[in-house]
Amino acid sequence: MSSVHRIAVIAGDGIGTEVMPEGLRVLEAAATKFGIGLQFDHFDFSSCDYYERHGKMLPDDWKEQIGGHDAIYFGAVGWPDKVPDHISLWGSLLMFRREFDQYVNVRPARLMPGVRAPVVRRDGSPREPGEIDMVIVRENTEGEYSSIGGRMYAGTEREIVVQETVMSRVGVDRVLRYAFEVARSRPKKHLTSATKSNGIAITMPYWDERVEAMAKEYPDVKVDKFHIDILTAHFVQRPDFFDVVVGSNLFGDILSDLGPACTGTIGIAPSANLNPTRQHPSLFEPVHGSAPDIAGQGIANPIGQIWCGAMMLDFLGHREAHDAIMRAIEACLAPGSDAPRTRDLGGQASTSDLGKAIAASVQA
Amino acid sequence: MSSVHRIAVIAGDGIGTEVMPEGLRVLEAAATKFGIGLQFDHFDFSSCDYYERHGKMLPDDWKEQIGGHDAIYFGAVGWPDKVPDHISLWGSLLMFRREFDQYVNVRPARLMPGVRAPVVRRDGSPREPGEIDMVIVRENTEGEYSSIGGRMYAGTEREIVVQETVMSRVGVDRVLRYAFEVARSRPKKHLTSATKSNGIAITMPYWDERVEAMAKEYPDVKVDKFHIDILTAHFVQRPDFFDVVVGSNLFGDILSDLGPACTGTIGIAPSANLNPTRQHPSLFEPVHGSAPDIAGQGIANPIGQIWCGAMMLDFLGHREAHDAIMRAIEACLAPGSDAPRTRDLGGQASTSDLGKAIAASVQA
Ligand SMILES: CC(C)[C@H](C(=O)O)[C@@H](O)C(=O)O
Ligand SMILES: CC(C)[C@H](C(=O)O)[C@@H](O)C(=O)O
Repeated sequence: MSSVHRIAVIAGDGIGTEVMPEGLRVLEAAATKFGIGLQFDHFDFSSCDYYERHGKMLPDDWKEQIGGHDAIYFGAVGWPDKVPDHISLWGSLLMFRREFDQYVNVRPARLMPGVRAPVVRRDGSPREPGEIDMVIVRENTEGEYSSIGGRMYAGTEREIVVQETVMSRVGVDRVLRYAFEVARSRPKKHLTSATKSNGIAITMPYWDERVEAMAKEYPDVKVDKFHIDILTAHFVQRPDFFDVVVGSNLFGDILSDLGPACTGTIGIAPSANLNPTRQHPSLFEPVHGSAPDIAGQGIANPIGQIWCGAMMLDFLGHREAHDAIMRAIEACLAPGSDAPRTRDLGGQASTSDLGKAIAASVQA
Repeated sequence: MSSVHRIAVIAGDGIGTEVMPEGLRVLEAAATKFGIGLQFDHFDFSSCDYYERHGKMLPDDWKEQIGGHDAIYFGAVGWPDKVPDHISLWGSLLMFRREFDQYVNVRPARLMPGVRAPVVRRDGSPREPGEIDMVIVRENTEGEYSSIGGRMYAGTEREIVVQETVMSRVGVDRVLRYAFEVARSRPKKHLTSATKSNGIAITMPYWDERVEAMAKEYPDVKVDKFHIDILTAHFVQRPDFFDVVVGSNLFGDILSDLGPACTGTIGIAPSANLNPTRQHPSLFEPVHGSAPDIAGQGIANPIGQIWCGAMMLDFLGHREAHDAIMRAIEACLAPGSDAPRTRDLGGQASTSDLGKAIAASVQA
């Protein structure tokens, strides 16, 4: 039995609170099966309910409370009817990314069995599971998401608003290095860089320059670059071309919604906000968000949360457990399977029906 | 016979020089048929060949040479093996947009007959012509494409690069107003705003604020907004939902490649860089660019250039001629048609075969 990993559990808002129990159920199943020690500590902050009670998203000592954990297992945050997004998100999720220096955001986009991709081949035939299999690596702490800027001549016809994009050598190089390493570890060893150096002619040429410099250290990795506009077109037209795709904070954000959309898995895609130095905890959250439109009905698909749990175990050193969870997810999704299906998959099952089925499959 | 419109013709680079003669051929056919006076003045600058001969993209008096024309009919610019994109583009196309204050970029994305969309319906069935029919309206002079910024601590580990995004009340409002007017003129009267105010928390909330303010003046237009990340996902998953979509310079750039990609028409999509005040000429260019990979073979599809010509005639007040050209394009693309098809359409025809067929159809 390995030492105990301390996990900070933050369910957050909306369907976050519904999918989290299923994520934990599957993690517990995997922990039992593989003899992994997991300790879950639950926190109620980083939710809009907490904000309504306390007038802020986090307690003052949030860093002491969760900063010593080995990982943060996160549901979703945001409930625009209660708190504007830019307050709830900058007051929690985006602050965790910054304060815990989670400088890499990793998001796989894979065509799973039993899921129909909305993008078809050139001849109109459907794409097969595994045909699309990419990993988006996103810079997660700087770039276009900056807090420098402001407004002048407010309220007049001359009003002007500026916001600085900031790229640092340290910030760019460390995420590129991570992306090159991921590319090197995969069979295709293919890295695509998202740029826009023909239009955004100060920061993006710098990004290109750093990609070129680092490519010299990875002669075994095939590197190419596309401007973000045509890159989104290629995602639709030939998603099978891509392997690892690296982008700035904004471009990575866009591509990591578009990639899962092209594989039909945006409702079940996971994401990992990583601090690879392990000086601070990393955070694992499904891509779907709090989904106010379906919250409270118990019908959300828990696979995103469960897949995140698999990524967390992988990051904590338990590759086997990760693979077992992924196999269980794929088995339950497979066309022939009699596993319960939630509404988004064309069935009537509840969130916990599907969670229980995946947990059972992990244990089997 | 209406007065003569003076058109500055710039074929530019690569396939620009191959599709331009076909564009002119069809314009001439339409001019004859509808009694429109068109005078074409050809210019060899704004091409990488010109750069190689003169060390610059444009002559010093370029503004005098073309600034008095009623419109600029443009092929494509850029040839990265000869001149880096950020030099060729900022030295020509992007400078025209700025100097002629072409503050609106309009790009239709429509599923045409005979073209297979790479995105299918939820049940896997193909989408029908007309089912996707949107217009992307892009801010074209400010925003993320700014020239303010620079580099510090160059060449060291502390290196940092910044670039300012700039949005002005004047700049945002005028493009929004144009977009609201386009929405109002269409049957669905639906305007979608692309934002990212949850992450880019200074400029984008300002954009949202201006959209909200202007929406009050257009109670008959149905307005919604999506963050750019999920918006790209919706383009793939339900492109039929959209009507008019307005975005900042960068977001509009992305969506106006993604939209045509979703309709399978990126090779034939047109774009109009408009100065609606008509104080300076507007510029009409196909989206495809110079396409070095197929240039010189006479196989490029000229429909983008021809469609641009139709948009130009429309802007010059000749709606009927616009409609006639669009009908001719659709007739030649229609599945049953015996019109020649270029390679991208699955045929063997040359650029001029297809151009001639469309011109003949306009005249018929
Ligand atoms: C070539 C490039 C600078 C340009 C842009 O980004 O504006 C192009 O992508 C376009 O959309 O016209
Ligand atoms: C909610 C939002 C601020 C966030 C982002 O843009 O980073 C989200 O889209 C994501 O990708 O995690």
